[in-house]
Amino acid sequence: MTRPFNFSAGPATLPEDVLQQAAAEMLDWHGSGMGVMEMSHRGKEFISIAQQAEADLREILSIPANYKVLFMQGGAIAENAILPMNLSRGARADYVITGSWSQKSAKEARTYCDVHVAATNEADLHTRMPAYGSWQLSKDAAYVHVCSNETIHGVEMHELPDLKALGSDAPLVIDCSSHLASRPLDWSRVAVAYGGAQKNIGPSGLTLVIVREDLLGRALPITPSAFDYQTVAKNDSMYNTPPTYAWYIAGLVFQWVKRQTEGALTGLAAVEARNIAKAALLYDYIDGSGFYENRVAVDCRSRMNVPFFLKNETLNDAFLADAKEAGLLQLKGHKSVGGMRASVYNAMPLAGVQALVDFMKHFARTHG
Amino acid sequence: MTRPFNFSAGPATLPEDVLQQAAAEMLDWHGSGMGVMEMSHRGKEFISIAQQAEADLREILSIPANYKVLFMQGGAIAENAILPMNLSRGARADYVITGSWSQKSAKEARTYCDVHVAATNEADLHTRMPAYGSWQLSKDAAYVHVCSNETIHGVEMHELPDLKALGSDAPLVIDCSSHLASRPLDWSRVAVAYGGAQKNIGPSGLTLVIVREDLLGRALPITPSAFDYQTVAKNDSMYNTPPTYAWYIAGLVFQWVKRQTEGALTGLAAVEARNIAKAALLYDYIDGSGFYENRVAVDCRSRMNVPFFLKNETLNDAFLADAKEAGLLQLKGHKSVGGMRASVYNAMPLAGVQALVDFMKHFARTHG
Repeated sequence: MTRPFNFSAGPATLPEDVLQQAAAEMLDWHGSGMGVMEMSHRGKEFISIAQQAEADLREILSIPANYKVLFMQGGAIAENAILPMNLSRGARADYVITGSWSQKSAKEARTYCDVHVAATNEADLHTRMPAYGSWQLSKDAAYVHVCSNETIHGVEMHELPDLKALGSDAPLVIDCSSHLASRPLDWSRVAVAYGGAQKNIGPSGLTLVIVREDLLGRALPITPSAFDYQTVAKNDSMYNTPPTYAWYIAGLVFQWVKRQTEGALTGLAAVEARNIAKAALLYDYIDGSGFYENRVAVDCRSRMNVPFFLKNETLNDAFLADAKEAGLLQLKGHKSVGGMRASVYNAMPLAGVQALVDFMKHFARTHG
Repeated sequence: MTRPFNFSAGPATLPEDVLQQAAAEMLDWHGSGMGVMEMSHRGKEFISIAQQAEADLREILSIPANYKVLFMQGGAIAENAILPMNLSRGARADYVITGSWSQKSAKEARTYCDVHVAATNEADLHTRMPAYGSWQLSKDAAYVHVCSNETIHGVEMHELPDLKALGSDAPLVIDCSSHLASRPLDWSRVAVAYGGAQKNIGPSGLTLVIVREDLLGRALPITPSAFDYQTVAKNDSMYNTPPTYAWYIAGLVFQWVKRQTEGALTGLAAVEARNIAKAALLYDYIDGSGFYENRVAVDCRSRMNVPFFLKNETLNDAFLADAKEAGLLQLKGHKSVGGMRASVYNAMPLAGVQALVDFMKHFARTHG
């Protein structure tokens, strides 16, 4: 069966292998007589699923032993409140504005702490990351928050900032929802990484929070127990009933990542190489086409989310209709940016990007 | 295929029809070329799934038009904080203690408001509901909170209190996680009904909150936007990305409820009749056995969660091992109560309860 290629920004396409396995195990997981959705989260079957998923994620991302992996709920938007509740102590926190998502984060945080905007790319219409040297970091920030890949504007930090080198001792917190597990992560620079699962990880309704242990135990008294990182960590993410099925699917995706190969590369390195190739194929075509354009600074372009425009925007509706006809789904850009957006997460094969480029060429030829 | 019968208290057994349909649609929902997990929550496909699920729930429970149905996250434990954030205005709220779950609710609420314990059955070891006439309700409570079915202790309010008749004008809030959609609900007595989905509704990670519209807009300033009932309602539960797959499964379960028949009864009435029959079969056997016992007052016994004890508790391990061998899973009681517990939610067929009773008879005969 050949499925259409689905470029949704999230919830997003998942590996067919994973969906097939999930379907096959729906009524009976490994001879247990229960589907995963039907298992007590405290039973040995689900505990084994949960632990394997965490171990695989730790392996894929080389997460150091002094970081806890929390399986939470509410997505990045809930985390926008949960994070300052847990880390700010009501004091100052630095936020870097790079697009819609970091704007939302900073806005929500103002309820819980003194938000200082250390840098913003608003003047550039969020088309480049603010140069690290320009950041105005506070002396005493509880943390520095960045969104390391802006899903809507398609800008990505390809190298994370080294806060120490920028004169700050604060822990770096990254909202990496839309590129988590698409590339290695430099833990020497990151204290907290969080993200909604519905891009590279699995279904919506699961939030991953990876937090350095020394930052636990700072929650404001108003923090709901279910969202207190220390409480969640102490209870192995089972203080409240976790989203067990989403956790299981995430585990299948982690195993899929581990199985990937690309030439001599395996696992996340293979996935990253493929993501680099996919992005290069798409951006190179767009740049050379004369018919389409991407407005993001070349060194800040996201490998995951590629917004682009038809130079003749009166053709937008025809482009989307023909794309759908060609089996290329969910290419409409976010309403705040307009145009088109192709999200090419881990599960999008190179063949999908090639099909998109082929279609774009054909459309340009017939409408140019 | 005959599956074992799974008596888990939650996440819990789901109808086989539902699981089979979910498996069949895993890679391609209705010819869309996408699985439900892969759909944008803002696309027309998922919107149609979401709206149908809400419409079906409204039909099943006869939810009045002036109540909003919110599809949230975090389960009842998160709701223990989210509720007082939304409704208490920091003032007084009355809580009735009837078991572990209402105890947790009251404890968490103390962070946000002045909790008054209006009644408690602690002296009765949570084996009966406190008589309504004994409740000491406040004059000025922002709301009165009860847990209408205690999953751990197996006590259920078979008729909800009429607060007006008890001299209170406060809105009644019920945590009905473990019997929601197992029986009709008297909306003339209820202002807010909430529950985790992982009992009668679907997978964990989805919380249903059904709230009367006049109670929206009262959230404390510290309420995270993603958990502000008014914000959630205004955005049709899509302010943050909802748990789309859990929502879809819930929708399949609601359609399953609508399809049920029992004699001349259909839908929820049929499901309720079956639940009454299942509970009667199990309690009647236990009471008459001389070998097992249930310690809950007869008129307060839960139809959903049946805790029971072997009079000779040294046989507990043998009972559980033999039950598993007989295809009867997850019968161990909650650690705080001990003994056994059979949760017999909507999806547990009468045949499952009959199989349990047959096994219990056999075990009693061979170990008596």
